[in-house]
Amino acid sequence: MSHVIDRRELEFQLFNALDAEALCESERYNDHDLTLFKSILDTAEKIAIDHFEPHAAKADEEEPKYKDGKAIVIPEVKAALDKYIEAGFMTAGFDYEHGGMQLPALVTSAIAALFTSANTGTIGYPFLTIANANLLSVFGCDEQKQKYMEPMIDGRYFGTMCLSEPHAGSSLADIRTLAKPLKDGTYALTGTKMWISGGDHELSENIIHLVLAKTPGSPAGTKGISLFAVPKYLVNYDGSLGERNNVDLAGLNHKMGYRGTTNTLLNFGEKGDCIGTIVGQEGEGLKGMFHMMNEARIGVGIGAAAIGYAGFKIAREYAAERPQGRAPSNKDASTEQLNIIEHTDVKRMLLAQKAYTEGGLNLTFYGAWLVDKIATSKTEEKAYFDRLLGILTPIIKAWPSEFCLKANDLAIQCLGGYGYTRDYPVERLYRDNRLNPIHEGTNGIQSMDLLGRKVAGDQGKGLQILMGEMKKTIQTAHASKNEKLKIHATTLAEKMTLMGDVTTTLLTTATSPEYLFMNSHDYLIAMGHLVVAWRWLEQALVADRLLVEEKADVAYLKGKLQACTFFFTRELPHITVYATTLTAQDSTCLDTDPDWLL
Amino acid sequence: MSHVIDRRELEFQLFNALDAEALCESERYNDHDLTLFKSILDTAEKIAIDHFEPHAAKADEEEPKYKDGKAIVIPEVKAALDKYIEAGFMTAGFDYEHGGMQLPALVTSAIAALFTSANTGTIGYPFLTIANANLLSVFGCDEQKQKYMEPMIDGRYFGTMCLSEPHAGSSLADIRTLAKPLKDGTYALTGTKMWISGGDHELSENIIHLVLAKTPGSPAGTKGISLFAVPKYLVNYDGSLGERNNVDLAGLNHKMGYRGTTNTLLNFGEKGDCIGTIVGQEGEGLKGMFHMMNEARIGVGIGAAAIGYAGFKIAREYAAERPQGRAPSNKDASTEQLNIIEHTDVKRMLLAQKAYTEGGLNLTFYGAWLVDKIATSKTEEKAYFDRLLGILTPIIKAWPSEFCLKANDLAIQCLGGYGYTRDYPVERLYRDNRLNPIHEGTNGIQSMDLLGRKVAGDQGKGLQILMGEMKKTIQTAHASKNEKLKIHATTLAEKMTLMGDVTTTLLTTATSPEYLFMNSHDYLIAMGHLVVAWRWLEQALVADRLLVEEKADVAYLKGKLQACTFFFTRELPHITVYATTLTAQDSTCLDTDPDWLL
Repeated sequence: MSHVIDRRELEFQLFNALDAEALCESERYNDHDLTLFKSILDTAEKIAIDHFEPHAAKADEEEPKYKDGKAIVIPEVKAALDKYIEAGFMTAGFDYEHGGMQLPALVTSAIAALFTSANTGTIGYPFLTIANANLLSVFGCDEQKQKYMEPMIDGRYFGTMCLSEPHAGSSLADIRTLAKPLKDGTYALTGTKMWISGGDHELSENIIHLVLAKTPGSPAGTKGISLFAVPKYLVNYDGSLGERNNVDLAGLNHKMGYRGTTNTLLNFGEKGDCIGTIVGQEGEGLKGMFHMMNEARIGVGIGAAAIGYAGFKIAREYAAERPQGRAPSNKDASTEQLNIIEHTDVKRMLLAQKAYTEGGLNLTFYGAWLVDKIATSKTEEKAYFDRLLGILTPIIKAWPSEFCLKANDLAIQCLGGYGYTRDYPVERLYRDNRLNPIHEGTNGIQSMDLLGRKVAGDQGKGLQILMGEMKKTIQTAHASKNEKLKIHATTLAEKMTLMGDVTTTLLTTATSPEYLFMNSHDYLIAMGHLVVAWRWLEQALVADRLLVEEKADVAYLKGKLQACTFFFTRELPHITVYATTLTAQDSTCLDTDPDWLL
Repeated sequence: MSHVIDRRELEFQLFNALDAEALCESERYNDHDLTLFKSILDTAEKIAIDHFEPHAAKADEEEPKYKDGKAIVIPEVKAALDKYIEAGFMTAGFDYEHGGMQLPALVTSAIAALFTSANTGTIGYPFLTIANANLLSVFGCDEQKQKYMEPMIDGRYFGTMCLSEPHAGSSLADIRTLAKPLKDGTYALTGTKMWISGGDHELSENIIHLVLAKTPGSPAGTKGISLFAVPKYLVNYDGSLGERNNVDLAGLNHKMGYRGTTNTLLNFGEKGDCIGTIVGQEGEGLKGMFHMMNEARIGVGIGAAAIGYAGFKIAREYAAERPQGRAPSNKDASTEQLNIIEHTDVKRMLLAQKAYTEGGLNLTFYGAWLVDKIATSKTEEKAYFDRLLGILTPIIKAWPSEFCLKANDLAIQCLGGYGYTRDYPVERLYRDNRLNPIHEGTNGIQSMDLLGRKVAGDQGKGLQILMGEMKKTIQTAHASKNEKLKIHATTLAEKMTLMGDVTTTLLTTATSPEYLFMNSHDYLIAMGHLVVAWRWLEQALVADRLLVEEKADVAYLKGKLQACTFFFTRELPHITVYATTLTAQDSTCLDTDPDWLL
């Protein structure tokens, strides 16, 4: 049975909770309609189930091998990617002018979630390629667009993002890769890049690396960083492949999960000139990279929610079919056993998984919807949505990567001993998802981005917009006839006020950046819980309306309401503990002498 | 560098926090003294580091293989076990009368923790064997002791525990393995047992399986269950090996972690008579098994804490040596980077790991100390300690298996991308530890044991004893000169009263077992946090006294005080959320229709 995200769930998120159809009223998405979206989901679902999911376990067991300087992956990966490219998914999100289908980010995000839930390793290659081509579409020169971007959109070339180095992961200011200008305007790169996903393979004709490097004499820190497009094979003016550039595969990383995607150590220019062309201007490398990074962070959140959901789906189906034990009040062992989904503690674990993963899906799809709103709005509205997405981005990246991972952990627990074996995918899904709190900026980095750049740096304007949106939902809930939702609305309003007060305290009393950031992870989690509670109230309001209006899918919609209640009664209250720590400006961690820990 | 538990930490736990030396005043441990204990720890540490730790990664990568009906493990396992047996560790805990060293459980637990932190897979074999021999020492007949127990204590035979079947894990009442009495007083067993650790290997001359089975015509449920000793090779009266008994290896389970220990599916009597002898009386199988199980549950807690600690040790040492980034207020990228242990969010993750794992070690060693107090006390005192250990056992099993696992997760995060690779042991330690919330009774089962059998079933007497012990610590803290510890004592007293009230509410108002148990996991976690806070206050009081009296090891002792503060300020407050759920008798989970989850 497939663990690809349920169609019912995706349609609820896209067409009920977030109105994908309304996006088609904009000029940008005017050619599209609901029928098209559904037929695209049909195709994606079919390819995900038929071609991606079947080799997910094999790709994990038989991870990429290093052989004669090449990374070899199992053949099923290319076969699946061929189907994906054939069906046009590589082009889905690109503008018409670049040969794309110009689909809303909301829809391409649903497609991304579908494929990720099927096989996160294999889908990694196109995701990196799309992000790379996207960056070039904005910051690349015409030649780069023609030589690199177009073949990537065609699915002939794949792409990578080369940021980290063995000694510099989170601290980009300290990278050492050097790009020396040559007389013809190109650059010769030397250096080593670490953790490069898709850094080598034989899946595409060429690989385009986007590489952060410093130019000679550039200032210390991030201001000295530029961005370069560096192909595996040089590309001639007619688009044919030239000779091999000096990008060498120094080794493969052997990971806990996510094994289907090669992860590499790359040497640039070790054995001869490694030629790259600059993307944008010297010293503006981070501008381009952060454009991409913000999209990548939303992508991480979507992936984390999708992998969490896949585990939830397996767990609930297992629980519905596995007989074990009896009700606590039934001591008669001669009676039939219950399926474990009848046991309250198993229901708890399933409700938690539902609350985390469907909350995560809604939150991350909302982020994608904001991307669409930004793309289709006029200046003032655009700035509004831009601010809102800005403050939400670190939460979208970090919250699902912690709580949907926790969902994967609970899925293992639901399956008991079976869940601990590799005969069921739940342990693999956990291992796959464990990357998400780490890459594209650790969650510690996200917490500083949230509190520093997005809250303090924006003088609280983004936060005001966010709370304004929450208030609209609270008002809608108060106007509904569902008494439970009114109570949740009151709770949400209280917690919102609490976090507003916490924020004011932090911004007005922290005497140094050290004090501001000393409990930033608690702030991130508390804000994440607040935001997800809001997204759950939104989902519950929609479910409540559909229950009254349509009277179909009753069990599914009641499940939405119950998961909302679970989140409000069992998860949201933990905010108060974080708020206390933050308001009291608890300095336990800051005050700890490193020697006390050794 | 080794990730075996620090000697300093073990000595603090055994000789400062728990007075191992005082145990030697009892008749039972009269021959022992501190010097002996230390020299045993020396030997254990050396063997763990030299012979167990080096192949831990290899045993994980090259898991046991099924070949011609046999389970083949890498040769390093036997080499390490030979050293272990040679040094006398198999005999350490057994009474003199059985050829043992009659060491206190507190000391053998420290040895167990040492070896587990080095290599949980390899040490699994002796642990199972010791548990098996222990059971036979209490419930076996003379022939079983002579034929099976003695060679196990000698390290020539290994043992297993065969409880679960493919369809019956948590629900032992539903096992189907059948034992038919034969004319000579032995039994012929038929059936299949699942998840049998150490179920086959070539590490020992023979394997003694302790098998739960039903006899013909026995009543339904657990009352119909008997226990049998079933050897892999029949044993002749002179102790020589006879022919192969019909216990067949049907297959190996391929696990997420803990891979060094074979985990098997065994068929009994499929290809011919499988002969076993009954241990104790017909229908009393669970009595023997639960004697063993209670010890095994303490063992699970010790192992979980030890594996969590190993991850913490790696994380703190990595953090102390990995330069990355600068202080938030330092924007000058030309200055040297800090080691990440200086970053407050990394300190948070390390403090949490310290609080969880050293809290877990203290809690579980306290459990072992109670085993010693039971073994050395007169009737009335014995009953007192027995009750106390009874109520603590489900907490000792479950709390470390959740929170020291969380420590392993945080260790991965501290190492970032490196932590996600198999080049560092932290991801393996996570995978190894992930078994602990599942086996020897899932944590859901533990929560019902705690609330049902240990609290309600005992009319709250065990809980009263536990709270009485806590009150002593609170009084000691109030008498100390450390103002912070007085505040913690007040907090602990408040939370203790809160959990007392919660318990009273549950016991007096739950109208059915379903209502009593509907939030039992929350009860377990809340009680676990309360108990661990108490154990931390104990540790802090000892550290405070040593700081004042000895003025040595200052950084280490200040670390203890800081971890205590961290636990009290950042972890313990979450109790109030669980208490609210419990007191309000929140029925969200109970009321959820399974269809709403599908």
